[in-house]
Amino acid sequence: MCGVFGAFSASGNPVLEEVYLGLYALQHRGQESAGVAWIDGENQIRTIKGQGLVHLALNQAELSGIPASSAIGHVRYSTAGGSGLSNVQPLAANYCRGPVAIAHNGNISNASGVRRYLENRGAIFQSTTDTEVILHLMAHQPHKTELDALVDSLRKLKGAFSLAVALKDRLVAARDPWGFRPLALGKRDDVYYISSESCALDLVGAEMIRELDPGEILVIDTDGLHSLRIPVEPRRRYLCAFEFVYFARPDSLIAGQSVYQVRKELGRRLARRSPCSGNCVTGMPDSGTIAAMGYAEESGLAYEKAIVRNRYSGRTFIEPTQRVRELGVRKKLNPIRELIKGQSLAVVDDSIVRGTTSRKMVELLRNYGASEIHMRISSPPVRFPCYYGIDTPTREELAAARSNEEALCAEIGANSLAYLTETDLVEAIGLPACEVCTACFSGSYMEDGEKYEELDI
Amino acid sequence: MCGVFGAFSASGNPVLEEVYLGLYALQHRGQESAGVAWIDGENQIRTIKGQGLVHLALNQAELSGIPASSAIGHVRYSTAGGSGLSNVQPLAANYCRGPVAIAHNGNISNASGVRRYLENRGAIFQSTTDTEVILHLMAHQPHKTELDALVDSLRKLKGAFSLAVALKDRLVAARDPWGFRPLALGKRDDVYYISSESCALDLVGAEMIRELDPGEILVIDTDGLHSLRIPVEPRRRYLCAFEFVYFARPDSLIAGQSVYQVRKELGRRLARRSPCSGNCVTGMPDSGTIAAMGYAEESGLAYEKAIVRNRYSGRTFIEPTQRVRELGVRKKLNPIRELIKGQSLAVVDDSIVRGTTSRKMVELLRNYGASEIHMRISSPPVRFPCYYGIDTPTREELAAARSNEEALCAEIGANSLAYLTETDLVEAIGLPACEVCTACFSGSYMEDGEKYEELDI
Amino acid sequence: MCGVFGAFSASGNPVLEEVYLGLYALQHRGQESAGVAWIDGENQIRTIKGQGLVHLALNQAELSGIPASSAIGHVRYSTAGGSGLSNVQPLAANYCRGPVAIAHNGNISNASGVRRYLENRGAIFQSTTDTEVILHLMAHQPHKTELDALVDSLRKLKGAFSLAVALKDRLVAARDPWGFRPLALGKRDDVYYISSESCALDLVGAEMIRELDPGEILVIDTDGLHSLRIPVEPRRRYLCAFEFVYFARPDSLIAGQSVYQVRKELGRRLARRSPCSGNCVTGMPDSGTIAAMGYAEESGLAYEKAIVRNRYSGRTFIEPTQRVRELGVRKKLNPIRELIKGQSLAVVDDSIVRGTTSRKMVELLRNYGASEIHMRISSPPVRFPCYYGIDTPTREELAAARSNEEALCAEIGANSLAYLTETDLVEAIGLPACEVCTACFSGSYMEDGEKYEELDI
Amino acid sequence: MCGVFGAFSASGNPVLEEVYLGLYALQHRGQESAGVAWIDGENQIRTIKGQGLVHLALNQAELSGIPASSAIGHVRYSTAGGSGLSNVQPLAANYCRGPVAIAHNGNISNASGVRRYLENRGAIFQSTTDTEVILHLMAHQPHKTELDALVDSLRKLKGAFSLAVALKDRLVAARDPWGFRPLALGKRDDVYYISSESCALDLVGAEMIRELDPGEILVIDTDGLHSLRIPVEPRRRYLCAFEFVYFARPDSLIAGQSVYQVRKELGRRLARRSPCSGNCVTGMPDSGTIAAMGYAEESGLAYEKAIVRNRYSGRTFIEPTQRVRELGVRKKLNPIRELIKGQSLAVVDDSIVRGTTSRKMVELLRNYGASEIHMRISSPPVRFPCYYGIDTPTREELAAARSNEEALCAEIGANSLAYLTETDLVEAIGLPACEVCTACFSGSYMEDGEKYEELDI
Repeated sequence: MCGVFGAFSASGNPVLEEVYLGLYALQHRGQESAGVAWIDGENQIRTIKGQGLVHLALNQAELSGIPASSAIGHVRYSTAGGSGLSNVQPLAANYCRGPVAIAHNGNISNASGVRRYLENRGAIFQSTTDTEVILHLMAHQPHKTELDALVDSLRKLKGAFSLAVALKDRLVAARDPWGFRPLALGKRDDVYYISSESCALDLVGAEMIRELDPGEILVIDTDGLHSLRIPVEPRRRYLCAFEFVYFARPDSLIAGQSVYQVRKELGRRLARRSPCSGNCVTGMPDSGTIAAMGYAEESGLAYEKAIVRNRYSGRTFIEPTQRVRELGVRKKLNPIRELIKGQSLAVVDDSIVRGTTSRKMVELLRNYGASEIHMRISSPPVRFPCYYGIDTPTREELAAARSNEEALCAEIGANSLAYLTETDLVEAIGLPACEVCTACFSGSYMEDGEKYEELDI
Repeated sequence: MCGVFGAFSASGNPVLEEVYLGLYALQHRGQESAGVAWIDGENQIRTIKGQGLVHLALNQAELSGIPASSAIGHVRYSTAGGSGLSNVQPLAANYCRGPVAIAHNGNISNASGVRRYLENRGAIFQSTTDTEVILHLMAHQPHKTELDALVDSLRKLKGAFSLAVALKDRLVAARDPWGFRPLALGKRDDVYYISSESCALDLVGAEMIRELDPGEILVIDTDGLHSLRIPVEPRRRYLCAFEFVYFARPDSLIAGQSVYQVRKELGRRLARRSPCSGNCVTGMPDSGTIAAMGYAEESGLAYEKAIVRNRYSGRTFIEPTQRVRELGVRKKLNPIRELIKGQSLAVVDDSIVRGTTSRKMVELLRNYGASEIHMRISSPPVRFPCYYGIDTPTREELAAARSNEEALCAEIGANSLAYLTETDLVEAIGLPACEVCTACFSGSYMEDGEKYEELDI
Repeated sequence: MCGVFGAFSASGNPVLEEVYLGLYALQHRGQESAGVAWIDGENQIRTIKGQGLVHLALNQAELSGIPASSAIGHVRYSTAGGSGLSNVQPLAANYCRGPVAIAHNGNISNASGVRRYLENRGAIFQSTTDTEVILHLMAHQPHKTELDALVDSLRKLKGAFSLAVALKDRLVAARDPWGFRPLALGKRDDVYYISSESCALDLVGAEMIRELDPGEILVIDTDGLHSLRIPVEPRRRYLCAFEFVYFARPDSLIAGQSVYQVRKELGRRLARRSPCSGNCVTGMPDSGTIAAMGYAEESGLAYEKAIVRNRYSGRTFIEPTQRVRELGVRKKLNPIRELIKGQSLAVVDDSIVRGTTSRKMVELLRNYGASEIHMRISSPPVRFPCYYGIDTPTREELAAARSNEEALCAEIGANSLAYLTETDLVEAIGLPACEVCTACFSGSYMEDGEKYEELDI
Repeated sequence: MCGVFGAFSASGNPVLEEVYLGLYALQHRGQESAGVAWIDGENQIRTIKGQGLVHLALNQAELSGIPASSAIGHVRYSTAGGSGLSNVQPLAANYCRGPVAIAHNGNISNASGVRRYLENRGAIFQSTTDTEVILHLMAHQPHKTELDALVDSLRKLKGAFSLAVALKDRLVAARDPWGFRPLALGKRDDVYYISSESCALDLVGAEMIRELDPGEILVIDTDGLHSLRIPVEPRRRYLCAFEFVYFARPDSLIAGQSVYQVRKELGRRLARRSPCSGNCVTGMPDSGTIAAMGYAEESGLAYEKAIVRNRYSGRTFIEPTQRVRELGVRKKLNPIRELIKGQSLAVVDDSIVRGTTSRKMVELLRNYGASEIHMRISSPPVRFPCYYGIDTPTREELAAARSNEEALCAEIGANSLAYLTETDLVEAIGLPACEVCTACFSGSYMEDGEKYEELDI
C-alpha cells in the first residue's frame, strides 16, 4: 500500500513543508520509503527520497527552505517492484517535452505487457516498478503536449491507480476508472491539495472539497481546477473494502463515509451476529480498538484496554536475535495482567492474515491467566491475494485459505472464533455491492470484460 | 524524568540486547538520550551513548554481539544539568579501585554543595549532572572497597535516587531512603533484572519478584542477591503521586498497585465528584484515555475515541516553520469531525501544566462544531515545581499557580473545568497519605528535618 | 579528464578490489567522483558510486567482499554534463537485451545531436553526460545482440572515447578511431585488465601486454581476447600531446614512450632553446619537477627542491574564508627561504593556463628574497580550449590567448619567460606530427572531413 | 609523534581557522586524530575532536564560524595511551579554578608514578594518556591561580613535553627543561602563534620570531608576551636528532638550522663516507629524496626520480585483502622501469627501522631489472627504542638491533649497505653533541641524575 500527496499554490507560496506534513499524516499507508518531487525555476525536475519513515527519509527543515509552489510526495510500502532506492517514488524524468514526476498508489495490472512493448521500441527502464510505464508511454508520444500524452497514456492502463503528477506549471491528480483507491481534493486559502486520505488534509489545516470521481483527471494550474476524464467506461466500480476494515485512518472520510463510524458499526454487527459470554471486550491495538468499542456497546459487555501498545514502536523496532526472541520478548504489545487473570475475554481484531499474530496473542493471554478467549473478527475471512495495491501474502500463506473456521480456531488456540459476513461488511460501508471490491474475501477480481485501450502508440 | 535498567546473568550469558529492550520499554520516561554501560573482560568500563530515542541512540544489532553478562542502561529527560553528550548517562569512570558506571533516576537535592566540597579537594568534574558527585565521593575513599565506598557515598545524599550501578562482577541497585522513584526487581532463568518500572520486565519475559524497599541497596553477583540498607532513617516516605497520574505506563505495578486500575479509579472518582451533562466522554490521547473510560463507566455516558493520535509521532516531529504553524497544522492529534459536530463533550485529561495544550484543544473542538466542552482533570491542580526528578516549569509558568479554576476555565475557553481532590488522588492510589509525595499539588516538599550524613570524607 | 579501468577473471575470482586499486592509481585523472559497476549472479547490473576521491567515494572493504569476476570502474573530472550524482560513471542500464554499464574517458563531439535524435524516438535520458547516448543507441537496436548493438553504436560517434563496457559474461574495451586518449591492456595470471594508463597495471601487479589500437574493440570473455574494429577510417590520428606534458603519470608508457623520459627531454630541449643565467633550477611541484631536472642536467645549473608541496593536500583542502585568504595563507606549496633568498632562479612548469598560479608563485618567491625569477615552460603556449576531454577554460580565460609572451611575462612579474616550440614538443614525444593532437596549442582541431556513420537506426 | 599549534589574537579576531590550517601543515607529525580547544564567552571549555586526518577529523567551515580569539590544536600519533577517542587531544577539563585545555607533544617519563599518586588522593582519570596528569596536578592545587598551578605542575614532570595550554584569557606555551621537542613562536599583525614547527607559521602567513628555550614557559595575553622558567636545572640538553633525519618537514627551521640543508649535508657526508659505483642515485620518496640529491651532488652521479610516489596516498589507503596483497600490489611507490632496467643504482633512505620496506623495495627493483642496488642510509643504525615521543617498535623488532650491517645487507638483498656515523650526523646538525639526543642510535638515554621536583602536593 502507498500514499500520495500533492500541493499547488496559485500565488507562488512554498509548499514542500506541507507536502512533508501530508506524507507524515499518511505514514500508516507506507513505512518503507518516502520522497518528494518538484520542478525548479530552471524547469528541472528535482527529487529528494529516502528509506524508512518520513522523518528519517526526508528533512523537514531542508524542505521548508525550498521555494517550490507545486510539489508531490509519496510514502511507499512495496507491492510491485522491489524495495531498492531506484524504486522509491516519486519517479521522475526529463523527456523531450520537459520534466515530469509521478507518485502512484495502487497496482497497474497490465504493466509487464506494456513494459515489454516499450522496451522493444528502445525504452530503458530505470526501476522495476509498474509505475514507470507511465513515464515511457508519455515519452513515446513526443509529438503531443505533456498533458495530452499523460491522458493518452492512462487510457492504456488496467488496474488500480490514484496518481499525483507534477508537470511544468501544473499539478495533475488522476484516479483509475474503477475507483479502487481513494483520492481527495482539499483547499486552504490559495493552495489546492490532493491526498490519498482526508486525514492529511486535516493535518495541513485544509478543508476537504470533494473526492475525485473514478476515471477523473484533475488539472490544477494558476487558473484553478480543470476536470477531464479518462476515456474508458468501466462496467462497475471496485472501491477497496479493506480501506474501511483496516487500512485507512479512522479520522478519514472515504466515499463520504466516516471510517471510524463504519468500523464501529462493523463491531456492532459482529456483536449481533456472533455474541459471546465473556466478562469484557478488548481490541487488538490499534487495528481492533474501534470495532471492539462497537462490540462492547452492542453487547453490553465492559470495554477495557487490556492490551497496551508500546507508544514508540512503529517500524523502529528490529527483530531481536533468535536467543532473545525465544525468551518471549514482546516488543509491541503488553497485556495488563490484572485485567486478564481469570477473565473470559472477547478479543476483537480487524482480520486474520497469516494467523501468527492471533496465535501468539492467544498464547500470551493464556499465560497471563485468561480463562476463556473468544476471537471476533470484524471482516470476512481473507482467502485471496490482492492484486490492486495491498501487499498480501500468497494464497498458501493465508490462514483462512488453508483452514476453515473451526480448524483455524483450534490452530490459534481460542475458545471460539467468529467472522463478519461479506453482506454485513458491504452494508456497514453503505455502498451498493457493485461498487465495492471484496476480491480478497470472495475471489471476485475485476472482470476480464473491462475494457482499456490497446497499445498502438 | 529518566528510566534505569540493569541485567545480570549468573551463567555469563550476554545481556546487552535485553538492556536495550528494557530501555525501549522505558522510552516514555526519557526521549532525549539513551546509553548503556558494562565492564569488559579486561576490567575496562565501556559505554555506548547517543542522542534521541533508544532506537536512534543505540544499535540493537551491535549490542547483541557484545559478550557482557552484566550491564546497565539509562533513558534520559534532562532535569539537572544540560543536555550535552557529556551528560548522557550512564556516567562511567575508572578510579583507583577499578571501573564503575551509574544510571540514575531522580534528583539529588544537595548535589551542588557536595560538588563544591569535592572540587576543593582536587576533583575534576566531566559533566554538569548531579549524578557525578557519586563517582567522586567513591574516588575520594580510595582505601575502601568499591561497594563500601558506594554505600558510604549514598548516605551523604539527599533527595531522589533510584540507581543501577555496574561494578566489577556485580550489579547494584539502590533506592533513596524516601522512596521517591520506583525500582523493581525481576528474574528469568538465571538472569536478574532491575527496572524503573515493571512493564520493562514484562517485555524481556521476566517475572517481577518484588520492588526495592526505600533505602535498600541490592547487590547482585554470581552468588545471588544480597540486601543492604543505606544507614539513614527517614521520618516518612515520599512516593511520587504523579507516576500514577501520568508518568508510568498503565501496564506497570507500583507499590503493588496497577497503574491502569488506579487511573480508571481516578476517572470514576472524578465522575462522582464532578459529573457533567455531555453526550459522550472522550480522553486526551494517550494521557487521559484510561481515566476517560473510568469516567464513562461511572457516569453512564458513551465513551468515544473522538480524538485520534498520529501513530508515528512521538518526538520525531519537529516544529513546523512559523508560516506553516500559523496555518493551524495539527501534528499529533486529530479530532474526528463526525463525532464532535453538535455534541456536548466531556474531555478528560490527566493534568494541566502550562494550559497551552488544553486551550488549543478546546479551540480545535469548537472549530469542529462541538456545542459544549467540559474539561475534567484526573488530578489536583499542579501549582508547584517538582525538585525530585520531573521536569516541570517554574511556578510562573504553571497555569494553576497563576489562575484559580474559574479564571483558568475562561482562559482555556471550556464550558466547565473540574479537578480531582488530593484526598481522592491519595485514596485511589491506596497508600497512606504519609507515604505519597504530593508536593507539586500541595507545595509540601520533603521536610528539612530529614537527616543525611554530613560531609567528612 | 577521466580514467577508466576494467578487470575480467576467466576463472571466476573476484576482481572488484583490483578495480578499486586501479582507480586509486588513476586518481590523478579525476578527483570529482568515482564508481564501479558489475553484473551480478542474477544478471542484474550493480553500481556503487560516490563523490570525491576514490577512498572516500568507495569502500575498499565492501568491494573486496563482492563476488564479481568482471567489473569496470571510473574516476571523473567533469567535462561534459554537470557534476551531480546522476552523472557519476559508470552509467548503467537494463535494456531489453540485458544489463550494460559504460565507463568513458574523452568527449563525444556529436553527442547533443544524437541525443535529440533519440529523444524524438521516445528515449528518456537520466543524466546530462555525453556518454549516455551510447546506452540509448544500443537500446534502440533491440533486434541485435548486445555486442552488435554496441559496435553499431560506436560507429555513429565522433570525437574522443576510450571505453570500458561491462556486458553479461564479457568485458569490452574500445578506443575511438582517432586515438585521442590512451588505453592499455594488461594481464596477471588468469585476469585481463584494461586501464587508461599503464601505471595502474603496475599497481595491481599486472604486466602490460599492449595498448589498444585506435578504432579497436577488444572483447574479453572466458575464451580469451577477440579484437574487432569500429568500421570507420580516420584520415589521421590525434593522440593528445598534453597527456605527455602534464596529464599522465610519469611512470606510465603511452604509445610506447616513457612519460618520465619524454618530460625530461622536454626540459633538456627547453634548456637548449631558452637558457638562463640563474644560480639554480627548481620545478613547480609536482607538474614541473621532471622537466626541471632535465633543464638542470642540460644547463649544468644545480637542481634544488626549493618549493615544498604539502604531502597531505590533494583536493582535501577547501578554500579558507576570505579573511584568512587575505592573510596570505599558502595551502599547497611552501618555498624554503634559505634556498631562495638572494638567488637567481630558473623555475620550470609544464604550462600556463590562467596565469594565476604563476603570478602568485613569482610574488611569493620575491617575498622570500629571490633576486631574479626566470619562468621556463616545458610546452608551447596554451591558446585554445580542448574539446576532447580535458577541462580547459574558455579562450578568454587562457592567459596565452589574451597576451603575447612579453606581456604575459610582465603580467606574472617574472624577469624572463620562455616556452617550448610545438616542433620540440612533437619531436620529444617521438611520433609523427600527423599522429599527435596539438589543438590546444595550435587550434588545429579534428578535421570536418573525418567520417562517421549517419544516424539511421 | 604529535604536533601542537596555538593562536592568540590580542584584538579578539577569530583564530580557529588558522589553528586548523596550522594543524594541516603539521599533519606529517600525526595522522591518527586531530582536535582543537578554546574557552567560550561563558568561560566554558569547548573541544572538537575526530579520528583520522585533519580534514576528516575537523570541519574547516564549522571552525571558521566560531568566535574564539584564543585556541589550541593537536595532531596525534599515539605513543603513550591507546588510540580511543577519550585519548584524542587537546585534553580539557573544568576544575574549581576554571577551564583548562592542553595539547602535548612528547612523552612524560614519570607519568605512571604521578598518576598513581593522584588516584590515591581521589583523582578520576578519563583517559590513559600521560598528558592527563598535568590537569590533575593542577586540580590538586585548588588554592593557587591556574598559572601558578601550571608552573608548579610542570616542575614535577620528567621527560619530553612541548605544550600549548589554553587558560581563561591566556595562551601558554611551554617546553621541557631538556628541550627534546621543538616549539616555535610566530606573529602576524596582532596574532601570536605557537607551533611545533616553523613550516606551520609559514602556512598561516606568520613570521617566526624565535624558538622557545628549553624550560621556558611563555604566557601570551592581551598585554603581550611574558616569559617564565620551569625551576629545574638540567645537566644537559637533548634535542631529538631524528627530527632532522626524518620527522620534521624540510621547510622547517629547528634550533636555527634549515632541515632541508641539514638533510642535503647528510647526503653529501654519506657520499664522502660511503661512495658507490652506480649509474645513478635515487631516493626513497619522500623521506630519502633530499639526502639523495646531496649524495648525487657530492658523488657526481646523475640524480633520477626513479621511484614514483602515489600523490593521493597518505594514510587513506587501507591494506588490501590477503589475496590481493599476495599479487604484489604496490600501493604507495611505483618504480619507473625504463630508469631501472640494467642500471646499477644507489638508493638513499633516511633510516631502516624494521627492514621490511627496504627488503620489499630491493626485491621490487630487482624485478624491474636493476643490475646492482646499493642502499645508503643518511643516519646511524636505529638500535634502541625512543621513550621521548616517537613511536618506535621494541628492540626485538628493530632490524639494526638484531643484525649487524653485513647480515642486514644480506637480509634486505642489497649489493651493499652503508650508514652514516653518529659524528657525521651531529656535525651536520651543527650543534654540540651534548645538546643532541641520539638515544635511538646510541642507547644513551637521559641520565638518572637529572632532577625534577618530588611529589608533595
